[in-house]
Amino acid sequence: MSQASSPMIYVCITCRRAGEPDAEPRPGALLADATEQAAVGTGVEVRRLRCLANCTRGPSAAMRCNGSWTYVFGGLDAGNADALVAGAKLLAGASDGILPWRGRPEILKRTLIARVPPSDFIESEP
Amino acid sequence: MSQASSPMIYVCITCRRAGEPDAEPRPGALLADATEQAAVGTGVEVRRLRCLANCTRGPSAAMRCNGSWTYVFGGLDAGNADALVAGAKLLAGASDGILPWRGRPEILKRTLIARVPPSDFIESEP
Repeated sequence: MSQASSPMIYVCITCRRAGEPDAEPRPGALLADATEQAAVGTGVEVRRLRCLANCTRGPSAAMRCNGSWTYVFGGLDAGNADALVAGAKLLAGASDGILPWRGRPEILKRTLIARVPPSDFIESEP
Repeated sequence: MSQASSPMIYVCITCRRAGEPDAEPRPGALLADATEQAAVGTGVEVRRLRCLANCTRGPSAAMRCNGSWTYVFGGLDAGNADALVAGAKLLAGASDGILPWRGRPEILKRTLIARVPPSDFIESEP
């Protein structure tokens, strides 16, 4: 499996919280700001985007390294930025491309929405 | 953007329906069977896997072509196999890697869980 030079976090900047008024800045943008700040000096790259189509369960972020599974999280807020960066570093060190359960920040256990495999993935015992 | 030779559908074979007894075969396995059948002769490749971590909103499937966004759907059943294959073909023909809204099977409008960008994606106006 190939590994990218940098683990990557994608943060949806258009996410708002369900049922909350449409305030600016959007909670997603605040999460992106906080995650960028948390990632400084860590080697984790943060990309802002619109959108991850997880709109009813936002704010949302995804993470991957080349060759890893991609993980989508929802229901986040700016206070989870450090956990996202810690998770991305954990994923970057996983030789099987799977985000480990052990050592995973608690918030990334509770807020997982979905994961998708790398393109070349084939289940060993389908 | 690169395009794979085949559009790909990943079907989670461990998915059961929320609140239903743990019957075998699993609804996810039945969806995989039906999708494999629907894909015969279409050029769409179907891969069975466990799992997409969308367990509370299953049965689940994902689709992508190399270079496209990856789309995760939930709440599916075996009757949606043709729609999955039609969606994968639609995605394969999308030069921007985005599954078009127009022409998208209705079930793939209502059951989208999340989407994630290709690895090289950078938002044009972040």
